[in-house]
Amino acid sequence: MRTVSKDTITQSFLDYVVEETDERLKFILEKLAHHLHDFVRETDLTHDEWRKGLELLYSAGEISTPERNEFVLFSDVLGLSSLVDMVNSPEDGTPSSVLGPFHVLGAPDVPVGGDLKGENEGPAVVVGGRVLTTGGDPIEGAQLEIWQTADNGLYSGQDEKQPEYNLRARMTTGADGRYLFSTVRPAPYTVPEDGPVGELLRATGRHPWRPSHLHFIVTASGQRSLVTEVFPSDDPYLDEDAVFGVREKLVMEYQERSSTEGISDDLAIKSDLPDKFYVVDFDFILSSV
Amino acid sequence: MRTVSKDTITQSFLDYVVEETDERLKFILEKLAHHLHDFVRETDLTHDEWRKGLELLYSAGEISTPERNEFVLFSDVLGLSSLVDMVNSPEDGTPSSVLGPFHVLGAPDVPVGGDLKGENEGPAVVVGGRVLTTGGDPIEGAQLEIWQTADNGLYSGQDEKQPEYNLRARMTTGADGRYLFSTVRPAPYTVPEDGPVGELLRATGRHPWRPSHLHFIVTASGQRSLVTEVFPSDDPYLDEDAVFGVREKLVMEYQERSSTEGISDDLAIKSDLPDKFYVVDFDFILSSV
Repeated sequence: MRTVSKDTITQSFLDYVVEETDERLKFILEKLAHHLHDFVRETDLTHDEWRKGLELLYSAGEISTPERNEFVLFSDVLGLSSLVDMVNSPEDGTPSSVLGPFHVLGAPDVPVGGDLKGENEGPAVVVGGRVLTTGGDPIEGAQLEIWQTADNGLYSGQDEKQPEYNLRARMTTGADGRYLFSTVRPAPYTVPEDGPVGELLRATGRHPWRPSHLHFIVTASGQRSLVTEVFPSDDPYLDEDAVFGVREKLVMEYQERSSTEGISDDLAIKSDLPDKFYVVDFDFILSSV
Repeated sequence: MRTVSKDTITQSFLDYVVEETDERLKFILEKLAHHLHDFVRETDLTHDEWRKGLELLYSAGEISTPERNEFVLFSDVLGLSSLVDMVNSPEDGTPSSVLGPFHVLGAPDVPVGGDLKGENEGPAVVVGGRVLTTGGDPIEGAQLEIWQTADNGLYSGQDEKQPEYNLRARMTTGADGRYLFSTVRPAPYTVPEDGPVGELLRATGRHPWRPSHLHFIVTASGQRSLVTEVFPSDDPYLDEDAVFGVREKLVMEYQERSSTEGISDDLAIKSDLPDKFYVVDFDFILSSV
């Protein structure tokens, strides 16, 4: 080790890892060391730049709380979170997308056809579709967790004015694999910009906007769990999501309607829908385990 | 962006960086994105592994303070700090080595030949040498900052029992470029193991020891500043420094002596040296700016 040099240090690092180390950990560390060391060698990183990087990490630590994790946000805006989603997404099902930091456990059970809109303002939307196997068979007893922003771009939990679990629900499909609910259109919003991630975005001229979306976690016995988001085709930020969450197959049409014809009678508020509303039809396809 | 895929996401990330962005930042981000994305693609990183990585960063943030920075420590044990030192080290001078977290400003001025030993226990050492240009000319007025552990492996600042600035000094060379002081042998010590870095070391069977060393920052007008450490040739951890700081050219001999013959009369405590002591002779070569 007294002969360590910029060309041998990667091997020196690997030589420190004892043979009994878990094989997968060894493999991950080998790749990590190769890439981090190459990064320093290829950039001839200066001490000032190295210190700046460490400063960004340190301030990420300072601003992070269990509710607002700046390291996740760094991973998001660097495309790492989406890339992890993509390398783990089976080819034959609905693609996964970022979980994000706003999921909470314990949302109320709402029956198929139930209402999430409540007293929320904003354009009404009827969202429905089926949960299917890759063979096209409906899945009975699939569970959907659903969450979204209110019309102001904030989630309940971020916004004191919203009731607990506002615009959050859990729903279980029947024999036909169908889910259905009424809600309001979610709104685009910005990722937090008051920390080091905001500094990085500003330094590179990037905006912090995410296109509006509905979050879903879809689980069913014998199927791979799906964490995803669906995005309206007319959102202005669809092609420039700050966290790289959009996939072609996750874009849905918001169809404008002025008649309830064709809307399932399962929908509790069918007769109370406003004159104009939107309909979204989106099927989830779950790969088998 | 709705067509983002695992093969196109790196380009999508780069496309977000606006043209007016600082060229060097653009280059660094390009390399960073390539290497981080390749790391995820080549490992097919799972969500659990991704979460584990983020957890390590989050707990690094939790345990870090301005005095104990776990991100620096991660950089150290991954070999990044040493690599940054090496890519920035001129070929023709004394190599640099890690600054470490124990440097403090404001250490007292000690004249050439002064004593740092004071009331400290441990084997006595006389450390001396010259500060030279790459052409071999002595540098007058070069300033050395010197710091080291006590015999218990702790630095003043870490150890309440040590007086402020214990075993720390600033020294300025005269016309002959010489520095000289008496002290005690520093001791090997461990990097902190109570945080996520300790977890990583244990998972890979690595020990946390650093070989004993003397720290120096050497500066002189018209020369490149040098941050370095020198290590005794007989230290048991010389070939397995946890932070990759050792270089062949930074190894010095601790020569055992029982006579003060040949010791410069400049040394204030020359007549008070114990029966057995060590002598270290080490020259610093500063590259020009």
